[in-house]
Amino acid sequence: MVEESNFRWVESPVPAPSDGEVLIRNLWLSFDPTQRGWMSRETYFPMIPLGEAMWGVAIGQVVQSRKPGFEPGEIVYGLFGWQDYIVTNGGGMVGMRKVQAGVPPPMALGLFGVNGITAYFGVIDIGKCKPGETFVVSGAAGATGSIAGQIAKIKGCRVVGIAGGKAKCDWRVGEAAFDGAIDYRSEDVGERLAQLCPKGVDVYFDNVGGPILDEILRRINMHARIVLCGAISQYNSKVPYALKNSINLVARRARMEGFLVFDYQERYPEAIQAISEWSREGRLKHKEDIAVGLENAPKTLIRLFNGENFGKQLLKIADLQT
Amino acid sequence: MVEESNFRWVESPVPAPSDGEVLIRNLWLSFDPTQRGWMSRETYFPMIPLGEAMWGVAIGQVVQSRKPGFEPGEIVYGLFGWQDYIVTNGGGMVGMRKVQAGVPPPMALGLFGVNGITAYFGVIDIGKCKPGETFVVSGAAGATGSIAGQIAKIKGCRVVGIAGGKAKCDWRVGEAAFDGAIDYRSEDVGERLAQLCPKGVDVYFDNVGGPILDEILRRINMHARIVLCGAISQYNSKVPYALKNSINLVARRARMEGFLVFDYQERYPEAIQAISEWSREGRLKHKEDIAVGLENAPKTLIRLFNGENFGKQLLKIADLQT
Repeated sequence: MVEESNFRWVESPVPAPSDGEVLIRNLWLSFDPTQRGWMSRETYFPMIPLGEAMWGVAIGQVVQSRKPGFEPGEIVYGLFGWQDYIVTNGGGMVGMRKVQAGVPPPMALGLFGVNGITAYFGVIDIGKCKPGETFVVSGAAGATGSIAGQIAKIKGCRVVGIAGGKAKCDWRVGEAAFDGAIDYRSEDVGERLAQLCPKGVDVYFDNVGGPILDEILRRINMHARIVLCGAISQYNSKVPYALKNSINLVARRARMEGFLVFDYQERYPEAIQAISEWSREGRLKHKEDIAVGLENAPKTLIRLFNGENFGKQLLKIADLQT
Repeated sequence: MVEESNFRWVESPVPAPSDGEVLIRNLWLSFDPTQRGWMSRETYFPMIPLGEAMWGVAIGQVVQSRKPGFEPGEIVYGLFGWQDYIVTNGGGMVGMRKVQAGVPPPMALGLFGVNGITAYFGVIDIGKCKPGETFVVSGAAGATGSIAGQIAKIKGCRVVGIAGGKAKCDWRVGEAAFDGAIDYRSEDVGERLAQLCPKGVDVYFDNVGGPILDEILRRINMHARIVLCGAISQYNSKVPYALKNSINLVARRARMEGFLVFDYQERYPEAIQAISEWSREGRLKHKEDIAVGLENAPKTLIRLFNGENFGKQLLKIADLQT
């Protein structure tokens, strides 16, 4: 389990940009379960080197620019890390892009950021949801899961969410209009799945992995699709949970597939357009959980893993300069 | 484990066909690991009812026909079961079709039957093999696995086969021109995979499931495809093997997918044409393991599960009547 003692507060002079670089003032940090993986092994990124500032997606404001196309004052999105200032050329897998006019920074990190776009491609491209199908999502009160369930609902699915705690479940069924919710903390997930998905599961959007994934594998329908978005239940464990029911993939001709939003960069505009439209129509409810102060970043990350966050976890570092 | 004592020899009069039916004399039986599943649970078929003749794919000869389009003497392929004679309307998932002129019955059951067609769609459609990729197949000396590996080789992959016993491995590397073979009985599969697949595994065609699948999951590359064709190591076990490394599917954006050849009926001609062509060109070597006598059907099935068969397991019931 990640602990506050894994982090150290370090002060150093604000760096200066070279040719092709910008200096950015960080404003908002995004917190994502996948960051836990970056800390302990090579993932789609190399492991974060010990002693380097913790990596994290952020919204920042350009202070000084020696990179054509970027002007001081502009709001940008990128992998800027847990620090007040960063100098970058905007390269790498995440890249650096300007935030769409009219989108407030917190929404640029959630609904219009990695979470919304991940949910979109997971549901549409990997899940291939069809009207009338049963769609289950775990981490259903989390930033990505909550949007995924709502997109599946828009696509005509029966949607059941799995989340921890009654408040989160109530929000799913009430505000987000899911057809059912399961509180994995106080309910028997298998039993509740049997009740809420009497026709089995066609699409499962997995954010947690482990025993819940195994319960779903017991209940998949013919040609089911399991969208592997994350496995938060496994990120802090030394011995991974071993799946007992994967053999059903053979008999039921089902598919289980991992994906990463960064592979879809060319198609981001498609996702952002759909999300904008649904959001304007009031069909995508979004919940944010906001912490304040860079010094609180470690304990804010930990909130994700003990399930304290309710909605997209953000941290505000500084105000926008106008 | 299936045993001879699970079967009973029963004699009854030869049935007569009604309108729309044919009477068939069975000539050759096909033996396939999937039959083990049919015996103990609902699969893509309902479970075989106790007391009914064991199901099996077969080649037979029409003796008497009350079904338009079928004439006495014709050679047909279908799910005719472990019996000398059967009356059928040719319906069901497997259907009944005439054997292509010039294809000897044993080849109609193997290379041009379920095995060849399964291998074709598994490699091409689910595996999406690309030239230069590393392709691993288990059950590599079996009827489907051996063809799958050769098709991947034709498609330009580096092919490594996993099989039980030195003779089978030697045949893979010699006759079938695989790039490497692993004898899971006498070698450490993980260690040998590391040696033979130094660039990791892009496509795995799985016929066995269990710990070998888990070893592959440790070594999959980004965007790897795992083609779940069967899980013979699991069919006789009460407690399924639990997969420890499936979490790599998330980090490596990989896909694991089950499929069934019967879902591809409309595209059989495409597969049969490709197989005919490759076979004519001498690029598909085929090995058959032939038993004789209907009374030996139970012990012939068991050969599959203790790995005694070497190539496509068949049983000859009767000679063709001309």
